[in-house]
Amino acid sequence: MKKLIFALTVLAFANGPVVAQERALTHDIIEHARNLGEQAYNSNLTQDLIISLTSEVGHRLAGTENDVKGREWAKARMLELGFDRVWEEPVPFRVWHRGDASLRMTAPFSHDNFAITALGTSIGTPEGGITAEIVQFDEYKDLVAAPPNSLNGKIAYISFRMEATGLRGYGYAGQARRMGAVAAAKAGASALIIRSIGTDDNRTPHTGSMNYEEGVRKIPAAAISNPDADLLDNTLKYGQPVTMHLEMSSYSGDMVTTYNVIGEVTGSEEPEKAVMLGAHLDSWDLGTGALDDGTGVAVVMSAGAHIAAGGKRPKRSVRVILFAAEEEGLIGAHEYVRAHKEDHGDFENAIMGAEWDSGTGRIIDFAPGVGPTSLNVMRDIGAVLSPYGVATLPTNNAKGQSDMSALGNAGMPAANLGSEPTNYFDFHHTSNDTLDKVNMIAITHNAAIYAMFGYMTATVDVDFRK
Amino acid sequence: MKKLIFALTVLAFANGPVVAQERALTHDIIEHARNLGEQAYNSNLTQDLIISLTSEVGHRLAGTENDVKGREWAKARMLELGFDRVWEEPVPFRVWHRGDASLRMTAPFSHDNFAITALGTSIGTPEGGITAEIVQFDEYKDLVAAPPNSLNGKIAYISFRMEATGLRGYGYAGQARRMGAVAAAKAGASALIIRSIGTDDNRTPHTGSMNYEEGVRKIPAAAISNPDADLLDNTLKYGQPVTMHLEMSSYSGDMVTTYNVIGEVTGSEEPEKAVMLGAHLDSWDLGTGALDDGTGVAVVMSAGAHIAAGGKRPKRSVRVILFAAEEEGLIGAHEYVRAHKEDHGDFENAIMGAEWDSGTGRIIDFAPGVGPTSLNVMRDIGAVLSPYGVATLPTNNAKGQSDMSALGNAGMPAANLGSEPTNYFDFHHTSNDTLDKVNMIAITHNAAIYAMFGYMTATVDVDFRK
Repeated sequence: MKKLIFALTVLAFANGPVVAQERALTHDIIEHARNLGEQAYNSNLTQDLIISLTSEVGHRLAGTENDVKGREWAKARMLELGFDRVWEEPVPFRVWHRGDASLRMTAPFSHDNFAITALGTSIGTPEGGITAEIVQFDEYKDLVAAPPNSLNGKIAYISFRMEATGLRGYGYAGQARRMGAVAAAKAGASALIIRSIGTDDNRTPHTGSMNYEEGVRKIPAAAISNPDADLLDNTLKYGQPVTMHLEMSSYSGDMVTTYNVIGEVTGSEEPEKAVMLGAHLDSWDLGTGALDDGTGVAVVMSAGAHIAAGGKRPKRSVRVILFAAEEEGLIGAHEYVRAHKEDHGDFENAIMGAEWDSGTGRIIDFAPGVGPTSLNVMRDIGAVLSPYGVATLPTNNAKGQSDMSALGNAGMPAANLGSEPTNYFDFHHTSNDTLDKVNMIAITHNAAIYAMFGYMTATVDVDFRK
Repeated sequence: MKKLIFALTVLAFANGPVVAQERALTHDIIEHARNLGEQAYNSNLTQDLIISLTSEVGHRLAGTENDVKGREWAKARMLELGFDRVWEEPVPFRVWHRGDASLRMTAPFSHDNFAITALGTSIGTPEGGITAEIVQFDEYKDLVAAPPNSLNGKIAYISFRMEATGLRGYGYAGQARRMGAVAAAKAGASALIIRSIGTDDNRTPHTGSMNYEEGVRKIPAAAISNPDADLLDNTLKYGQPVTMHLEMSSYSGDMVTTYNVIGEVTGSEEPEKAVMLGAHLDSWDLGTGALDDGTGVAVVMSAGAHIAAGGKRPKRSVRVILFAAEEEGLIGAHEYVRAHKEDHGDFENAIMGAEWDSGTGRIIDFAPGVGPTSLNVMRDIGAVLSPYGVATLPTNNAKGQSDMSALGNAGMPAANLGSEPTNYFDFHHTSNDTLDKVNMIAITHNAAIYAMFGYMTATVDVDFRK
């Protein structure tokens, strides 16, 4: 490790032409950050946390008993790990019940066992289900173009296959999931079926959130796995009417309260100001929420724990926020912004934030999103991360990703720590989101990066809003 | 293609030091075989057949309505494809009903959604299920060593993970599935759970046949997916008693009749003698039986069709046999041997046989199993296949693989056509056995090899028993 530290020092100076002590990011801050990084690298804590969470709790669907168990687990662990304060903040939301979903083809051929999953927050079918002809659309935009009443009594089906181009492919294909039910209902359809928003070839359909629109009839919406969509596509090629029977018992229930769980390493000088390290504790219920977002929970808890155990408190606080009900639409994050703007009036104390909700890839880039005068400090921080294989991107518009983007969009300075490419979208939102998919070396690396980033941003003497 | 044929000719001569016309495998036979190979290579028939079978029929679990549909499909297609005779031969067997299976952990942690599948021919649990402590065994042989009554009231669990070493790994790990319930019952267990016999990390448990033993109590037996087995293993490491609730409604029903489907290209000189090209038409019910054994059905039907369409009838018949109830233990194949030995007295007319039940890999080797004096003819046949990337193995003990091994063991000369390594055991016996896993180029190659092999062995003037 000594050799590495020497190399880091050389690189840090090579990247920053100005002498270090003239900078806000002092040699002492850098040295302690590197020590935290070294400790996190040499520790099994990150992997122990993800094993513990998935074994002892499993999935953490918002509003379920497992959601409660997950919060109890997180609070107990953060206290054990030396966080100075651990608390919950309430998040009201409408609980959703998945129920059962089944789909079979009745004509021209019969197939019973389609692998299907309800989309999150979807309504169910009428009791007894819907039997209707399938009308296929290549893409979401084609469904949007369907004239009113053109799908009366039909099931709309979007067959578009997500390309394996990471978030770009997900964003484009994901329109079908997020907005397809509205478009289908506007054209008169009784239900929406989509090809899963996923890059795999497993019989593990991908759930995920969907939306209804005020004034547009709600219809049930579900996803079938890629192999099942292939079977449906192959059947449609026969040119005969394809009829399917869909049955779903999902429904949205009462308003209930879940909670964001927050653990704080309290700052030594300005404790009311805080750097936010975020992840979401909730998950979908099909797997054990290992990748989404168990890895994030493990990474930011581990980062916070290493900062707490590092022997020097940062000048400002580091808050590890485990958000609630992210999957239903960043509900915990939006509530955090609302509460800290309206109830506490202290939102400007959120001085910096970053989230990990990107699965199991190693962090390979660092994108700032700060005021113009503090950008050089962020680049200095990036130079400290550089020897760990993290490139600083030449942009300055980061919002913090996932939950944290709700805070970033509300004015909090932020950073995006970007993942190397992985097969995340093979498993995302499926029953296959389980521990075996986690790369323990990568998440240990990521915890080290977050520990360094958290300590440096909480301690450096700068206002990232400026 | 002309260049390829030229190259083949050169190679054939290079491999065979004796001049071709002095051999039983004449130049005319070789030339026609190569034409058949060329036609099969240039045809979409093989892939059309597997698309058609999986789309129009789906799975073909023995004794179900889909089993009937599969046979109707096969008979109609073989007649369309120019087979001279198509018929069925009855296969009595005891039908098995899968029913439902569920497994949840009740202590020390609760997990509801274990991915589980009943093993084929397993009995169910008593109504209301079994709640019992798990006793873990590393391997089948450790369970065999468990003393009588040591597992009374417990669920035996074999955690052994199959190695990705093809049939060798399958054979070794598969002991747990095939014989585990007997060993567990002898030690007093109430049920057996095994880690799936499969090489994947998907939440798609692997079913497959299992056995009971006369005089040993029958207990329910099921497999959980690899990620679920990992979760159970991780939980067992906490050192606390692990209790699970198992519920299964599977049962064996009445004796019913299914059928082997046979299509014949009738020989021009000795039609009562036949070369057998085999596959099994039945499948498990979790996927669409694309790899197991839809590819075999497509390959041997396509091979037979190309022989039939080739303009020259072979001297002896080529019979494409689509066996019934293979998955339940080669039942159709054993019945074929019994019937043709006892009822027809014509089993010695089975002059040669080979099966394709190896999924989606390209054929890369050819192993003879013939009498000593005809071995050189088999090697000449191998030399014709050699330029297609098929190596002749230096052995002579092939029995014909899968169903065909029942005929081989009863005295029929045989060949084994071996597959390149694939990820077959990721998908084998799971819901993931679907069309998308099929390599269309490989199965087209294989149909060409089977067409050449079938024509040559049916026409060459030799007795492979000698």
